[in-house]
Amino acid sequence: MLPDAAARASRRVESLLRELDPIGHEAAHPEAGYHRAAWTPEDLQLRGWFRDRAEGLGLRLEQDRVGNLWAWWLPENLTDPSEIQPGTATTCGSHLDSVPGGGRYDGPLGVVSALVAVELLQQTGWVPAHPLGIVCFSDEEGARFRIACFGSRVLTGALSPERALACTAEDGTSLASALTAGGVSPANYGPDPSLMARIRGHVELHVEQGYALAPAAAPLGVATAIWPHGRWHVALTGEANHAGTTPLERRDDPTLRLADLIRTAREAAEECGGVATVGKILVTPNGVNVIPSQVDAWVDVRAPDEAVLDAILHRLEDFGLERESRTPATHFDPTLAETLGDACIAATGTAAPHIPTAAGHDAGILQDAGVPSGMLFVRSTTGASHTPAEAATETDCGLGALALAEAIRQLERAE
Amino acid sequence: MLPDAAARASRRVESLLRELDPIGHEAAHPEAGYHRAAWTPEDLQLRGWFRDRAEGLGLRLEQDRVGNLWAWWLPENLTDPSEIQPGTATTCGSHLDSVPGGGRYDGPLGVVSALVAVELLQQTGWVPAHPLGIVCFSDEEGARFRIACFGSRVLTGALSPERALACTAEDGTSLASALTAGGVSPANYGPDPSLMARIRGHVELHVEQGYALAPAAAPLGVATAIWPHGRWHVALTGEANHAGTTPLERRDDPTLRLADLIRTAREAAEECGGVATVGKILVTPNGVNVIPSQVDAWVDVRAPDEAVLDAILHRLEDFGLERESRTPATHFDPTLAETLGDACIAATGTAAPHIPTAAGHDAGILQDAGVPSGMLFVRSTTGASHTPAEAATETDCGLGALALAEAIRQLERAE
Repeated sequence: MLPDAAARASRRVESLLRELDPIGHEAAHPEAGYHRAAWTPEDLQLRGWFRDRAEGLGLRLEQDRVGNLWAWWLPENLTDPSEIQPGTATTCGSHLDSVPGGGRYDGPLGVVSALVAVELLQQTGWVPAHPLGIVCFSDEEGARFRIACFGSRVLTGALSPERALACTAEDGTSLASALTAGGVSPANYGPDPSLMARIRGHVELHVEQGYALAPAAAPLGVATAIWPHGRWHVALTGEANHAGTTPLERRDDPTLRLADLIRTAREAAEECGGVATVGKILVTPNGVNVIPSQVDAWVDVRAPDEAVLDAILHRLEDFGLERESRTPATHFDPTLAETLGDACIAATGTAAPHIPTAAGHDAGILQDAGVPSGMLFVRSTTGASHTPAEAATETDCGLGALALAEAIRQLERAE
Repeated sequence: MLPDAAARASRRVESLLRELDPIGHEAAHPEAGYHRAAWTPEDLQLRGWFRDRAEGLGLRLEQDRVGNLWAWWLPENLTDPSEIQPGTATTCGSHLDSVPGGGRYDGPLGVVSALVAVELLQQTGWVPAHPLGIVCFSDEEGARFRIACFGSRVLTGALSPERALACTAEDGTSLASALTAGGVSPANYGPDPSLMARIRGHVELHVEQGYALAPAAAPLGVATAIWPHGRWHVALTGEANHAGTTPLERRDDPTLRLADLIRTAREAAEECGGVATVGKILVTPNGVNVIPSQVDAWVDVRAPDEAVLDAILHRLEDFGLERESRTPATHFDPTLAETLGDACIAATGTAAPHIPTAAGHDAGILQDAGVPSGMLFVRSTTGASHTPAEAATETDCGLGALALAEAIRQLERAE
């Protein structure tokens, strides 16, 4: 790299993030955060931006049958992504969609860093000997159709297209109609083993979620594993009635069971050693003077291992948990993790902590599908995630892009 | 009355209710109930229906400055409602709007019964010596702009037009724009003491809310009082964060305080002898994998007297209650209640229980403004209210209309 590469990487990452800032986000209301649910007009705008930026770098665009976007830097001997041979490609990237009211970095930092890494490599005159791809996975957050990592799950076959296409958003929009609006054919929707087979190594750079790197004074980290985790729906039914005229003893008020659920989930997580969250609650009919007929709640549970996760779920089984998704523990490729550690040293001059994460990621889905995968984390200054308070310094973001460029070079060298 | 008056009243009430059934209600989904929030297209349709029906009976329509509709049966010496002298008019009526997912009878039964009572009186050749009015109050439920009895509160001056016009619906619609859509001028919006001064007695017929009449084998009841009651908003703030990666000890999760609020409200009501309900909850941002930044909850509290109400509120004060409305106890006019009791005997042959109610009503607002007022209750067969399970028999509804007609005759006779 050139001596001022870190400073230039930092400026370029910030510049690209600023281009994205206005999408699904009002500068006048920063506290409202970013609203970029999958296949909404905001998401389509983000995807259009990615196409433009990738084409500006001379990369070849490919939209797979699930709607994930791939931008390929092909070696001289190839003219089209379809010619890529199995086990030859290195890929990196993340996602652009957000949770409702999310932060600036979760997702976009990984896509932007990949674009900047390619730009840095191009500026040094480096050319890849093997195909290099930047991926922008669709619907990572699962905020709209309620299953996280939609794009990578369907592509790898972890989620069947039938089950995926049965999903509808809360406003009644079917996934099929959302996909059609995004230019993806539901008829052609499904796994693509040959696309997956191309990849010999995949790296996702992500802002740190949690607060392990700042206390260690480390700008970057390398992922070891993803905690097992999942989402469960609980339908608490009661009987709608007048809030004034119904005696307490004639009530069947589901909010009382909601209160129990919230308390029990927290206590079980504390006692068993995991985390549990009731982040989403819908009350029907939700009138001030009406005892609700139903409360729908969603519980997100994560734990260091499957036994702890099961212990927490066992404590909640009386509430009638309906599983929406459950992802076993993922252990990232150790050889790739070693390469990422070396790249961090090359970029920062110091060793990066190797840490687990409780958040799911597309890189975890790929690893579980047999694609050697790894993750780079950029230090969070707040520990906040899935909120507008999510933050990382421009310097650390630049170091992340630099480490990613270094990792790409090392992975390309390996045979 | 003619001998078959009860049967005819029953058929006519049912027939008019059936005309209203399709509005804001799908026959194919009876479990979804009635959706008739104030000033929505459904409400405007209901108001149009009332105008048509009242004009069909030869009544003179008057829309007051708040948007309440009055249909006048004038004595021969008057040609216009503006000529009505103070203290000469008898009025009856109720409202047509509903809570979200409400029942068939709450509101409409009072309006329909008033129309049928006038029809029955006309068929006997009876003519009023003094003005007789049927009123259809606007926005009784407060479902959309969050203050109950909007129309009667502003008309009587219990709620200032400034405070009323500051209200907005959850979708951002201002009351002013909703009023304008309904043909009411916000500039002219405010109390009308001269209209109130016309009334010497007001009767609201309503389906029973609660379950006191069925055990007493009584088809009708007479109201003695309305419990003091009110609505309080609670804003529980926390810190949005990732549901997986935020350690429990770094969380500020407002759902835990929501659970406390729900439990404490119920326990306080049980111990103090009133009722308390958390019927409406809004979670921000309401994502499955996000610890909420805020939970907004509304608590509805009612009690037999002010001291019990205060005791319940005292137990909740740590949650930061913000009062949206509070209505003191209302004691209905005892002379009018006696007349209503006589009318019930005339209609049914048996004495009607005199009972209090925990539900607010426009008749209570009028009574508190100095207008002698009373209420007739028609037996509920389910005890359910503010839900599609709300029910009354056709026979009881007919007896209610008959008693209302009888009450009008007796009130007209009194000097």
